[in-house]
Amino acid sequence: MTNRAALSRLSLNQRTTASWSLPEAVQGCLNAGLGAIGIWREQLAEVGLDEACRLVAESGLRVSSLCRGGFFTNPDEAQAAAARNREAIEEAAALNAATLVLVPGGLPPGDRDLVAARDRAARAIENLVPYAHERGVNLGIEPMNPIYAADRGVISTLAQALDIAERFDAADVGVVVDTFHLWWEPDIADQLLRAGPRIVSYQVCDWITPLPADTLLARGMMGDGHIDFPAFTRSVARAGYRGDIEVEIFNADLWAAPPAEVVDTMVERYLKLVQPYMGKDAP
Amino acid sequence: MTNRAALSRLSLNQRTTASWSLPEAVQGCLNAGLGAIGIWREQLAEVGLDEACRLVAESGLRVSSLCRGGFFTNPDEAQAAAARNREAIEEAAALNAATLVLVPGGLPPGDRDLVAARDRAARAIENLVPYAHERGVNLGIEPMNPIYAADRGVISTLAQALDIAERFDAADVGVVVDTFHLWWEPDIADQLLRAGPRIVSYQVCDWITPLPADTLLARGMMGDGHIDFPAFTRSVARAGYRGDIEVEIFNADLWAAPPAEVVDTMVERYLKLVQPYMGKDAP
Repeated sequence: MTNRAALSRLSLNQRTTASWSLPEAVQGCLNAGLGAIGIWREQLAEVGLDEACRLVAESGLRVSSLCRGGFFTNPDEAQAAAARNREAIEEAAALNAATLVLVPGGLPPGDRDLVAARDRAARAIENLVPYAHERGVNLGIEPMNPIYAADRGVISTLAQALDIAERFDAADVGVVVDTFHLWWEPDIADQLLRAGPRIVSYQVCDWITPLPADTLLARGMMGDGHIDFPAFTRSVARAGYRGDIEVEIFNADLWAAPPAEVVDTMVERYLKLVQPYMGKDAP
Repeated sequence: MTNRAALSRLSLNQRTTASWSLPEAVQGCLNAGLGAIGIWREQLAEVGLDEACRLVAESGLRVSSLCRGGFFTNPDEAQAAAARNREAIEEAAALNAATLVLVPGGLPPGDRDLVAARDRAARAIENLVPYAHERGVNLGIEPMNPIYAADRGVISTLAQALDIAERFDAADVGVVVDTFHLWWEPDIADQLLRAGPRIVSYQVCDWITPLPADTLLARGMMGDGHIDFPAFTRSVARAGYRGDIEVEIFNADLWAAPPAEVVDTMVERYLKLVQPYMGKDAP
C-alpha cells in the first residue's frame, strides 16, 4: 500500500496542533498526505465560514468533524446554548462535516444533581434534532471519561450515549468514540458492536500516567500510554466503521513542539498502531 | 438523637489521618465518639497484630475494614501477592474486620491488555475465597474510578465488581462502595439495589475539581466537591446497608492539618450530609 493510500483515512483534529490557524492546519494536512481534518469552531471563526469552506473545498480534504457543540447542562444558559448549537449546525452543514461533536457539559456551579444534568443534556439533544435533520447534519454525542463527569461531560459511557442516541434515527444522532474516554469501559467491545452505524467519529489518543496536572491536557500520543490501540481499533472496524480516524490530543508538551513534527509523529504512530487494524478502507 | 448515637456508625479510615499511628487513631476515634475504625496494614505492622487486637478490643471500636489486600494483576508477582493476601486475611480474621478491602491492581508495566488483567484479578479472588471462607473473612472487591484503571484498579464499575462477586456466596465476597469511585456510574442507584447485602463497606469522600496534581491524593472532604451525598447515601440505605460509614480521604492538604481537627470537620460534614440519610441504625 502506498503511504498516501495508508493515510487516506487519517484526520488531523485541529486541537492536536493548537497553534496552527485553519489555513496552516489545512496546509499541514496536505503536506503530510492526510485525507481529512477535524475543524474547531474557534479557529473557524478566525477566518470566517465562507473562507473556511473555500479552503476546504480547494484542499480536497474531508471534514471528519466539527468541534464542537453541546454544553447543554446549565439551565441558566439553555437558550444561549441552543442558539450556539444551531449556529454550529449551520457551519457543519456548510462544511459537509461528517458530524458535529457534542460535548454534553458538566454540572453547573453548586449543582450536584448528576441525574438531572444528564436528563437536561438528553432533552437538549432532542430539541436540536429537527434543526440538524433539516440541514442534513449528524449530531455526534461524545461520552467522556468519568474524570470529566463533574466539569465537562456528564455522559460517561458509550452505553449511556447510545441509550440517548437510539431514540433517534442513526442518520440524525450518532456517537463519537474516543479511545481516551472509553478505553476502560468494561463491555466496550460489545457496546461498539451495538453502536454499529451510529459511530460517526473515531478519535484516537492515549491515556498516560502519571496524569498531567491539568487533566484537560492529560492526553498522550498513541503508544505513549496504556491503551491497546490494535484491539480497540479492531473492535471499531468490526462494528462496521469505515470513516476517518481523527487524532485529537490535548497536551501542553505537544503544543510546545513544532506542529509539523507532531504531525510526523502522529502519522508514524497511526501507521504502526491504528491503520493496520482498521479493516477495509472506504472513504 | 444524642451526638454519640448519631456517630455510632461513623468510622475513621486511617488514611484520612495518615500521620497518626494506630494507637493515636484509636484514641482519636474514642475522643470523637466514633463507633468504628478502618485499619491500614502498614500502621498495623508498626504495632504488631497482637497489640493491635488488644488495642481494638479495649477500645470497644468495631473494625469496619482492613485496608488492603489485592494487587492481583501482575502475573510475575502472583505468588507473592497470594501470600500477602493470605496474611491479610489472617489479620482481618484476628481483628474481626467487617471486610478485607481488595484493590484489584493496575496494568503491569508495558502491558495493555485490560481484559486479561481483569480476568487475572477475578481468578485471583476466586483462589482466595476458600482461605477467607475458612477464617470467616469477607473479601470486599473495590471498584475504582476509571481514573485509576491503568495504574491501580482495573475493576471500574460497581456492575463489574458485582459480576465477579456474584459468583460466590455473599458472606464470602462483597463489594466496597466508595462515593469517589462510583458517583458518576450511570445506573448507580440500580446497581446499589442489585448489590444489596453484598455491600460490606460504605466509604465516603468527595470528588473535587480541579483535580489535585497527584491524582492519588485527589479526594476531598464531603461537601467540598460535586457528589450528592444525601442522594447516594439514600440509595445505599435503600439497598439495606446497615454497617459502618467510613471516611477515607487521601489528600495532601488534609494530611498537613492537625488530625484531630480533620476528625472534627469529618464529624460535622458526616452529621450534615450523610448520617441523616442512612436510615435505621443497626450496628
